Amino acid sequence: MKLYDLELSGNCYKVRLFLQLIGQEYELVPVDFLGGAHKKPPLSELNPFLEIPILADGDLVLRDSHAILVYLARKYGGEGWMPTEPSSMARVIEWLMVAENEIARGPNDARLHDKFGYDLDHGLAVKRSTRILDLIEEHLKGRDWLVLGRPTIADIACFPYIALGHEGRVPVGDRRNVTAWIGRIKTLPGFVGMPEL
Amino acid sequence: MKLYDLELSGNCYKVRLFLQLIGQEYELVPVDFLGGAHKKPPLSELNPFLEIPILADGDLVLRDSHAILVYLARKYGGEGWMPTEPSSMARVIEWLMVAENEIARGPNDARLHDKFGYDLDHGLAVKRSTRILDLIEEHLKGRDWLVLGRPTIADIACFPYIALGHEGRVPVGDRRNVTAWIGRIKTLPGFVGMPEL
Repeated sequence: MKLYDLELSGNCYKVRLFLQLIGQEYELVPVDFLGGAHKKPPLSELNPFLEIPILADGDLVLRDSHAILVYLARKYGGEGWMPTEPSSMARVIEWLMVAENEIARGPNDARLHDKFGYDLDHGLAVKRSTRILDLIEEHLKGRDWLVLGRPTIADIACFPYIALGHEGRVPVGDRRNVTAWIGRIKTLPGFVGMPEL
Repeated sequence: MKLYDLELSGNCYKVRLFLQLIGQEYELVPVDFLGGAHKKPPLSELNPFLEIPILADGDLVLRDSHAILVYLARKYGGEGWMPTEPSSMARVIEWLMVAENEIARGPNDARLHDKFGYDLDHGLAVKRSTRILDLIEEHLKGRDWLVLGRPTIADIACFPYIALGHEGRVPVGDRRNVTAWIGRIKTLPGFVGMPEL
């Protein structure tokens, strides 16, 4: 399978990280993002949303890092990372949605502004970051992992932009539970980092 | 089961709609949203994110409309609405993420601004709405449903805020495929509407 990738993208990184954690071999295809390669054929035909990562596995082409995590977990990762029992599955989905919504509009937006110069309201992103970081700090009280008492794709989806928060001036700070959780993820067998993380 | 609900919320509506489509009985608990009931106990203890809908099914309490749709589809809806085969499941998830991201930041934000006076950038919401509506119009070319050739929770998740777009000055307009798709959803057995839709 091929992963169309940008090294500095946290969304691409979460897919690379998960592929390593499940020991799945793949071909990395670096995308010239600054040159706009994602906006032109052939990439624009693979993903009309003009974003990366894109995963191509045989005839299947998927966009959105979280949909890709779901696919990889179900196809290659076994029941542990993404269960199908209804309540467990919904618990994981709750946190994939936090990654797609609150974390994307918080620490991810803050980093896009500071690191890549995106025209975004940094103050609003900081406010949203504080809210979601505080919620996660509280949620992790007495918990090692976000859900189900074990690492799932919920942790993999939420971790990168939180751990990269300092790049958008929204560091984890003195939130001990979040800090411990980040540390736990970094000790998972097969863990790989990315620049600034 | 109990659904904590606000009649005018599109996110609550998508859960109500799906419960009707699968013929699942439930108890509706109206929430005094304007009075801030979602920000106080007992609701703030059920959902620390201080949002609705909230679904309580026995001991299980779920937040986020899309996680709730996943739960209901897996538990009560049968394989059709939310398959577990990896590629089909990922295809549905791709569109749940569109509902949580592009549609939330587009037509939903535009409506929150116009109808409820939220302090949001309406111009930006319109720009994002145009982009996602055009993408969906193109995607639906030659397709009756968003994915898998049949109605899934992807359609149920994406439909409400698109069909309510006129309330935020982002109507579907002359996008024929989107209009036909909305019409198709409205003819599903068990379909129920909501105000302005």
